[in-house]
Amino acid sequence: VSGELMARDMAAQPAVLAELVRRREGIVSDLRRLAPAAPAGVVLVARGSSDYAAVFGRYAIEAAAGRPVALAAPSLHTLYGIDTDVRGWLAVGVSQSGRTPEIVTVLERLGAGGARTAAITNDGASPLARAAEVSVALGAGPEEAVPATKTFTAELAAFALVAEAVGSTGWSAADWEEVPAAVAAVLADSDSADAAARTLTDAPGLVCLARGYLLCVALEAALKLREAAALPAEGWSAADFRHGPIAASRREVPALALSASGAAAADVAALADRLRGWDVPLLELSDRPGAELPIPARPPEPLACLPAAVRAQQLALALARRRGVDPDRPAGLAKLTPTV
Amino acid sequence: VSGELMARDMAAQPAVLAELVRRREGIVSDLRRLAPAAPAGVVLVARGSSDYAAVFGRYAIEAAAGRPVALAAPSLHTLYGIDTDVRGWLAVGVSQSGRTPEIVTVLERLGAGGARTAAITNDGASPLARAAEVSVALGAGPEEAVPATKTFTAELAAFALVAEAVGSTGWSAADWEEVPAAVAAVLADSDSADAAARTLTDAPGLVCLARGYLLCVALEAALKLREAAALPAEGWSAADFRHGPIAASRREVPALALSASGAAAADVAALADRLRGWDVPLLELSDRPGAELPIPARPPEPLACLPAAVRAQQLALALARRRGVDPDRPAGLAKLTPTV
Repeated sequence: VSGELMARDMAAQPAVLAELVRRREGIVSDLRRLAPAAPAGVVLVARGSSDYAAVFGRYAIEAAAGRPVALAAPSLHTLYGIDTDVRGWLAVGVSQSGRTPEIVTVLERLGAGGARTAAITNDGASPLARAAEVSVALGAGPEEAVPATKTFTAELAAFALVAEAVGSTGWSAADWEEVPAAVAAVLADSDSADAAARTLTDAPGLVCLARGYLLCVALEAALKLREAAALPAEGWSAADFRHGPIAASRREVPALALSASGAAAADVAALADRLRGWDVPLLELSDRPGAELPIPARPPEPLACLPAAVRAQQLALALARRRGVDPDRPAGLAKLTPTV
Repeated sequence: VSGELMARDMAAQPAVLAELVRRREGIVSDLRRLAPAAPAGVVLVARGSSDYAAVFGRYAIEAAAGRPVALAAPSLHTLYGIDTDVRGWLAVGVSQSGRTPEIVTVLERLGAGGARTAAITNDGASPLARAAEVSVALGAGPEEAVPATKTFTAELAAFALVAEAVGSTGWSAADWEEVPAAVAAVLADSDSADAAARTLTDAPGLVCLARGYLLCVALEAALKLREAAALPAEGWSAADFRHGPIAASRREVPALALSASGAAAADVAALADRLRGWDVPLLELSDRPGAELPIPARPPEPLACLPAAVRAQQLALALARRRGVDPDRPAGLAKLTPTV
C-alpha cells in the first residue's frame, strides 16, 4: 500500500512523545548544566523540516530566554568561512540523521567561536551528536519514509525543552501530559483529512498561512504536501503574505489557515476572511468550532503545534493517496540530503 | 502605458545609488557613533521587500561584525508581548514608508530593552525614523508604483553601510563607485529581460534559486514577479530547496538560477544542472558567460546584488506587460501595509 511507511512513522508519534515527556526533566537538566545562566544569545542550525522545527524553537526560546534567537545562515560558515565571536551564546544544531555535513560544520565552528553547543538528533552516535557538548536524543526510532513526520514533532518537543532550560515558559508539566493524547486523538480520526484531501485533489497549489507559534506548522505543512503529495504548496506568515504575495492570490489556488486559540488567532482569521471575500477556497486547521481540519482545544498554544503538525501530515498522506503519488519515496529526494 | 510608474521608479536607481555612495562616509560615521564597539548581536526588523533587503543585511553584517544577526519575529513583541534584554545589541528597523506599525513597535521595544536603535527608511520624518537614535535616509524620493524597486536597492546599499559601520567588509570604496554604472548598464539593455519574459508568458510559476549573498535577490525576484506580474513565483535557498521542495519540481514550472562569481556560484550551478537534467526549463541571472539574464562582472559579490536585483525588476516589468497585468497597482496591495 502506498504510504504504508509514512503512516507507520506517523502512528508512532504518541509513543515517541510520551517517552520524551517521561524523559523531560532529565533532558532539561542536562541542557541547564550546559547553559547555567541566561545565554547572551542563541543560534539554531538546521535545514529542511528541521529548520521549520527551528522556527518553532526560535519563538519558544526567545520568549523564554528574553534574548534574540538567530537561525544560522550555514553558507556564511561553509562557503564564506567567516569567524564569529559567540562566547556566552548557546548554539543548537538539529538534524534527524545527524549527518548533514553543513549542520555539523556550522555547529563545530560556533563551538570554536566560544558557544556552548547542543545537538538535537535521532542518532545519538551521529557526527552531529559527537560534535556537541550535550546531545538530546529524539528516540523516535528509524524513520522509514523519506518525509520527516515523527522526527519533526519530536524536534518540536525537544525545542520546547531547550526553552524550558534557558528561561520560563508559559506551559506546565500538566500541559505536557496532554500532548501524546492530543496527537493520538488526531491520528484516530482521519475523516476530516480525507474530506479535505478530496477538495484538494485537483488543486494546482495551496497557500498555508499562520502567524506566531503556528507559523512553523504552516511552513512544515507546505513542505509535507510538496514532499509527500507533490502539491506545490507554500507556507507564509500571515503578515508577510499581506506585504506582497497576496497580489498573486487566485481563486484557483485554495488556502489553508492554521491557528490555535491564542494571541495570533485573530490576525489569521482576519486574513482568512479577506481571502474568502475574494472567493479563494479556504480550509481551516484550528481548534475553532467548524474548522475543516480540527485539533483538540488542549494543549494550549504553543504546544498545540504538535497535534496541528500531525493533522497536516495526515492531510499530506491522504492527498498523496488520492493523487496516486508515493509519499514514502518522493522523486528526487533521499532521506539524507548531503548539503555542504 | 502600463508599468509607467514602475519603469520611472526603476530608472531613478543609478542616481539614487550614486547619491548614497556620495553620502557613504557620513552615514557610516553616524552609525559608528551609535555603535562604537562591536555590538553583542544585531537584530533586523522588517517585512516584505524590506525583509528581503534584511536577508542581505543579515549576511553582510554578520560577516563584518563576526556576531550572529537575527531577523526579528515581530509577533513575539506585538502579539505575545515578550520582554527582551538586548543591552549591547544593535537593532535596525527597515521600512520604505517608516509607517508600518509593527516595525515601529518592535524597534521601540528593542530600544526599551537596551539596544541601540537605527532606522533605514525613505521618510526621515516618519514614526520609524523618530523612534530610532540614528536614521539613515534612503533619499530615493517618492516611490510611485506599489512594488518597491528603487527603495529596495537603496535598502541593500544602506545595509552594506551598516556592515561597514560595525566591522570590516570585503568591498572597497572603488567597488562602490562601480555600483551606479553597473545598475545603469542593466537598465540600458532590456533585450534580455524581454526575451526571458517571452519564455515565461504562459508559465504557471517560477522557482527562483540562489545561495549566500544572492539569496536576497532570489527572494525579492519572486516577490516582484508576484506583485508586478501576478506570477506565482517562489524564492528558495538552493540548499533548502534540495531538502524537500525539489520533490514537487515539475517540467512545467521553469526555474531561475541566480549567481555572481563567488563562493556560492558552484553550488547554484550544480543545482541548475540537476534541474536541467530533469528537463526543467532553466534561466540564469548571472555574470556567467551565456546567462540569459546577464549582469556585469563588476562590482564583486556581495555588491553584485544591486545590479542583479535591477535585472530581476526588469524581468518582472517585462513579464507584467506581456501578461497584460498592471504592475503599478497590483490587485489587493496598497503601498503601505499596516500590519501590527
